[in-house]
Amino acid sequence: MTRQELIDLIRSRRSFLCVGLDTDPAKMPAHLQGTADGVFLFNKAIIDATIDLCVAYKPNLAFYEAMGLDGMRQLKLTMDYLHSLGKPAFTIADAKRGDIGNTSERYARAYLDPRGDFDFDAITVAPYMGSDSVQPFTTVQGKWVILLALTSNKGAFDFQLTASADGTPLYQRVLAQSRQWGGDDNMMYVVGATKAEMLADVRRVVPGSFLLVPGVGAQGGSLDEVCRHGMTADCSLLVNSSRGIIYASQGEDFAEAARAEAAKLQRQMAAWL
Amino acid sequence: MTRQELIDLIRSRRSFLCVGLDTDPAKMPAHLQGTADGVFLFNKAIIDATIDLCVAYKPNLAFYEAMGLDGMRQLKLTMDYLHSLGKPAFTIADAKRGDIGNTSERYARAYLDPRGDFDFDAITVAPYMGSDSVQPFTTVQGKWVILLALTSNKGAFDFQLTASADGTPLYQRVLAQSRQWGGDDNMMYVVGATKAEMLADVRRVVPGSFLLVPGVGAQGGSLDEVCRHGMTADCSLLVNSSRGIIYASQGEDFAEAARAEAAKLQRQMAAWL
Repeated sequence: MTRQELIDLIRSRRSFLCVGLDTDPAKMPAHLQGTADGVFLFNKAIIDATIDLCVAYKPNLAFYEAMGLDGMRQLKLTMDYLHSLGKPAFTIADAKRGDIGNTSERYARAYLDPRGDFDFDAITVAPYMGSDSVQPFTTVQGKWVILLALTSNKGAFDFQLTASADGTPLYQRVLAQSRQWGGDDNMMYVVGATKAEMLADVRRVVPGSFLLVPGVGAQGGSLDEVCRHGMTADCSLLVNSSRGIIYASQGEDFAEAARAEAAKLQRQMAAWL
Repeated sequence: MTRQELIDLIRSRRSFLCVGLDTDPAKMPAHLQGTADGVFLFNKAIIDATIDLCVAYKPNLAFYEAMGLDGMRQLKLTMDYLHSLGKPAFTIADAKRGDIGNTSERYARAYLDPRGDFDFDAITVAPYMGSDSVQPFTTVQGKWVILLALTSNKGAFDFQLTASADGTPLYQRVLAQSRQWGGDDNMMYVVGATKAEMLADVRRVVPGSFLLVPGVGAQGGSLDEVCRHGMTADCSLLVNSSRGIIYASQGEDFAEAARAEAAKLQRQMAAWL
């Protein structure tokens, strides 16, 4: 999906919501637990209930890898379903990968290649290993790398927010340096909603880039604060909610409850657009 | 595998060699390409040819993920085979994962849990997200986290080697801070052989920790330099070679050629032990 297609999708759905498919079998409704392809059936119901209210889906791969080989099969079923729908959605492999150049190429092939098992639009990447660990993800036509800048967890204070010799915090150096590796049409950044007041600082370095903002809801971030400090004329935001939507109910009404929570966020977003 | 068991294994095999199972189907001998379970059969032949000359195996997960669902099955077959051998080997999931705390727990379950599909001894982890992204890997009994400190690629200069406000490079801050998250019996560090002269600096911060050292051979690092600057009385080194061993020949003699290359390194290592 190109930048313009994503912006058009945001305008037509009046939403910049990303639904995090962090599916934990133990938190699914009882009637789906232990059934064959229960995780896929759960995801399918969530997708059906939310696709007109959101623009993106973001499975965190850790949840699928934790289920072993069958988990990756559930992920493939989910992606196959999304590709079959005929309704566009931006898909993000929340994988936080990154390795030396020839190895990052493999990760790009694994998750972004249209001939591969998954064919995501984007993948999240950790910047610690620098340029050659990131660049292979920027060379897949029409696909995106989403670089970790400022994450929403407490560990973000350990390294991301510590000052370099020139006084700038590490996450700002990541933002600045990465401008040599990609542009606004193939690179986004993760900036946690729990640090919304820093979005203004982020915007000074990457004024037009899309930001993927996790941490709204369960982790305590405020959607209004994110919009106030991070939104641009093109929106340029994808705001993620995972637990707050997909586990809104653990009963048989889980999909309707997910829709209701997604609709609340969508209405707030429509007011900002 | 405990630290003492690993040290005993190094002494009995007179080797601290780690063989990197970065298996690329296109580089396998022609007779294995395109055959069912060819990647596993390749790995099995490499393992059979090298297990008395090395102490560890390190599949880089990118190579398996790039093959989609079938790749993860080849990885599981490889791990099942290693577990069935009755000859000890330290196994490392070179995964470079890391996420917020509750998600890193999932990655720990995926790769370290003895009840899971893989049951590795150790996993490599990227430190960018800080404490809560690393700690879940340290709580699995008898298992190890191997934290990226100073990697062997050119991108290491982008962030790892840049000075913080207090003058220390980022990788040294990672080493120092991580001492609060684990100890010498459950945490190792990746330090690239291409920067062997920096091993002395590394040893000032982590004098007794095991170091996993990639970059010997194909990437240009020198084994002697690594030993000179990094070895301790307990050895505390695992030196990895991937391409130099597993692709020593692309003919039907690939396993014997791999053994010959592994034996060269083992003899050099025996002289240092």
